[in-house]
Amino acid sequence: MKHLALLGIFIFSSICVAQKADEHEKILEKLYQTSLLNGQSYDWLDHLSNKIGGRLSGSVQAAQAVEWGKEALEAISLDNVWLQPVMVPKWVRGTFEYAYIETSPGNRINVPVCALGGSVATSYSGIKSEVIEVKTFEELEALGREKVEGKIIFFNRPMQADLISTFSAYSGCVNQRYQGAEKAASLGAIGVIVRSMNLRLDDLPHTGAMSYGDLTNKEKIPAAAISTNGAEMLSGMLKLNPKLQFYLKQNCQNYPDVESHNVIGEIKGTEFPDEYIVVGGHLDSWDLGDGAHDDGAGIVQSMEVLRLFKEIGYAPKRTIRVVMFMNEENGLRGGNKYAEVAKNNNEKHIFALESDAGGFTPRGFSIAASDEDFKKIQSWEPYFKPYLIHYFEQGGSGADIGPLKNDDIVLAGLRPDSQRYFDHHHAANDTFDAINKRELELGAATMAALVYFVDQFGF
Amino acid sequence: MKHLALLGIFIFSSICVAQKADEHEKILEKLYQTSLLNGQSYDWLDHLSNKIGGRLSGSVQAAQAVEWGKEALEAISLDNVWLQPVMVPKWVRGTFEYAYIETSPGNRINVPVCALGGSVATSYSGIKSEVIEVKTFEELEALGREKVEGKIIFFNRPMQADLISTFSAYSGCVNQRYQGAEKAASLGAIGVIVRSMNLRLDDLPHTGAMSYGDLTNKEKIPAAAISTNGAEMLSGMLKLNPKLQFYLKQNCQNYPDVESHNVIGEIKGTEFPDEYIVVGGHLDSWDLGDGAHDDGAGIVQSMEVLRLFKEIGYAPKRTIRVVMFMNEENGLRGGNKYAEVAKNNNEKHIFALESDAGGFTPRGFSIAASDEDFKKIQSWEPYFKPYLIHYFEQGGSGADIGPLKNDDIVLAGLRPDSQRYFDHHHAANDTFDAINKRELELGAATMAALVYFVDQFGF
Repeated sequence: MKHLALLGIFIFSSICVAQKADEHEKILEKLYQTSLLNGQSYDWLDHLSNKIGGRLSGSVQAAQAVEWGKEALEAISLDNVWLQPVMVPKWVRGTFEYAYIETSPGNRINVPVCALGGSVATSYSGIKSEVIEVKTFEELEALGREKVEGKIIFFNRPMQADLISTFSAYSGCVNQRYQGAEKAASLGAIGVIVRSMNLRLDDLPHTGAMSYGDLTNKEKIPAAAISTNGAEMLSGMLKLNPKLQFYLKQNCQNYPDVESHNVIGEIKGTEFPDEYIVVGGHLDSWDLGDGAHDDGAGIVQSMEVLRLFKEIGYAPKRTIRVVMFMNEENGLRGGNKYAEVAKNNNEKHIFALESDAGGFTPRGFSIAASDEDFKKIQSWEPYFKPYLIHYFEQGGSGADIGPLKNDDIVLAGLRPDSQRYFDHHHAANDTFDAINKRELELGAATMAALVYFVDQFGF
Repeated sequence: MKHLALLGIFIFSSICVAQKADEHEKILEKLYQTSLLNGQSYDWLDHLSNKIGGRLSGSVQAAQAVEWGKEALEAISLDNVWLQPVMVPKWVRGTFEYAYIETSPGNRINVPVCALGGSVATSYSGIKSEVIEVKTFEELEALGREKVEGKIIFFNRPMQADLISTFSAYSGCVNQRYQGAEKAASLGAIGVIVRSMNLRLDDLPHTGAMSYGDLTNKEKIPAAAISTNGAEMLSGMLKLNPKLQFYLKQNCQNYPDVESHNVIGEIKGTEFPDEYIVVGGHLDSWDLGDGAHDDGAGIVQSMEVLRLFKEIGYAPKRTIRVVMFMNEENGLRGGNKYAEVAKNNNEKHIFALESDAGGFTPRGFSIAASDEDFKKIQSWEPYFKPYLIHYFEQGGSGADIGPLKNDDIVLAGLRPDSQRYFDHHHAANDTFDAINKRELELGAATMAALVYFVDQFGF
């Protein structure tokens, strides 16, 4: 009898699980259907990219993006929408950069360059000197001050093309851009040229953040990126003529910090309103393109998560927040500010998901969690398979949500297909026309699906 | 003692498996590395797309592609390279098509159209009549001869955007293009306009094969595709003015069959030379673009499989053939001929793999096999995971290898990401610039990896 009763309970609970399972399936179906048939993300991104454009921290466009973000969230009737003030750096490119290789007096070949974000200007008349090509900091240090002094250092280590994740290839190179000027200046160089972080050979220079570390203002030297084709040409010509001269002129400038904002909206949870789930991306972008992939896509996908919930009539148990972080590109001030305020307010954040890897076909998630929490997420994987979401791996999440890290929160990053990302990253071709509507919409639905499961089951 | 001996054997065999496993891993690593760092596929495709271009069966360009294919295979020193003659249809588009909507006499709006492949021309002065919009054949038949006679039928069922596989969405629509003219002509229509098989709203008409079934020459009516934007506009205007007139002029023509060729190359197997493994794609393409995705990508990836084996020094146990099939688009004559000759020669084909779904990031394979053979392939899946190849599903393979089907052969199709495919399929923007080098190369390596496992273990 007891066994029968147990059997009964077992059958009953199996049925419940199956029914519940079907419910989850149906929610996911609705999320994907709504995103693909009746989505808002693509139109939002059209506006952000084409009507506002590149929105570097501290720029007029960044301020316009904040205004727009707030209004767009208000228009989808969230429970609360507000701006969170944050001081951000302001760096301005100025007039376009100019550079050439001079093989002999009067014999000049122009090459495409752009100042790295945060770099100082050259003098009004520019800088001109011999060039020393290196691939690593070790190589640079081995040269020593004697050979480096007065020269322009050319960092030319390419991204490693046989890595499947282009982000891994990026990680293997980006120290040239970030620290190159500091290292070269310490040995007396007068400027640095860095090969663009781009796996493709083309004519577009890719900007990005750099740092002078502890150098004094007087010690700082101008730093610029050169297109991959330009880097190949310069390297080839140096082999023929190691004494060739390189000329660079740029007039970018750092200004005092200015006030900007994170844009935040939320749907209050019905059961656990004091447990917070964050979805977000960064609202700022570099100035060369319109920032459609980096990170306009992440912004509109995050907004869409909340809109989809409202559209399908799903009332979350926990409070779901969308955060448009300001200043990821050159300061991370927005991410730090959000985490600081959350801590001061004793808000219990259980999960944060960032989309900041482009608007391409979603492949899955990279998850920073304990083994136990990771297993829990893995148990939801079968629900994602019909949508061709297969990638659930432990790993990093996103820069803006990083400061929320503590022992209790699970962090995750959407992982879209990465093959094309660095063709556009921080360059003039990071533009709306490189966005595929369906890919963007699939990403939004995929984020919403994971947030749904976390909302249902918590950690 | 016995137990110890068994344990010893167990440990020994575990070590062997592990060693062997490492060997497989190493081969895959070499294949991917070579394809990404030192691949040939992208340069080949550059030539095929930009130097030869669109290569519809029977065209000068198709003949040039055959020549080029043979020479390219000879240049990589295969054991045998030859041409297999096959008679193919010859259809020629002629001068560009012209169409407009006329809301009142003199009030004309041009719309982008293109003749469907195989269609007859209009008369020299074109056709002009009222338009009846339908979404299905049932709707058309319900109208009956009385309402259809003398009219142009406009098939406007869009691809279903909420299907994750765009190929499924294509399957759900393509009967409008293939059979629309036959159905409409049977009810007395004078022409058909078909909404392009495109998930995106844009101005490019997409061509593709159509058939008149058993209609006599006299009964055949001209058939054209209209761009998705054009279809939306026509549909909208019909709601306002059901009596509007549509004008179409095209002067395409069918000619008698001409001789063309499949291009075949092979590496002879070292252990089982009489067991054949085929990799292939189709060499012909539509005429509007340069056929880079459909199916230039499949051609160069298939060639690359054999080149990669030679490049890494892998001597296959079985005979590996690359087949560049002619005339997939409007006849499948090449696929039929290859299967016919293989059968006549009693060649034992154990496996065929086709790439004909675009040169986008590979996601995996669709496999037509017995459950047992499918399980065997699934057991290799872990080796593919580091390359983000997750999709191993039972299903269709490829049109050209379909005629090889029998109880013994396993057929498979490479499955790249499908989201962007129908933006380009059969349209003027199926061009080389829409190809990403890394995505193409990953596809080639992925095909080589599967062929390697089949070669190692057979079926």
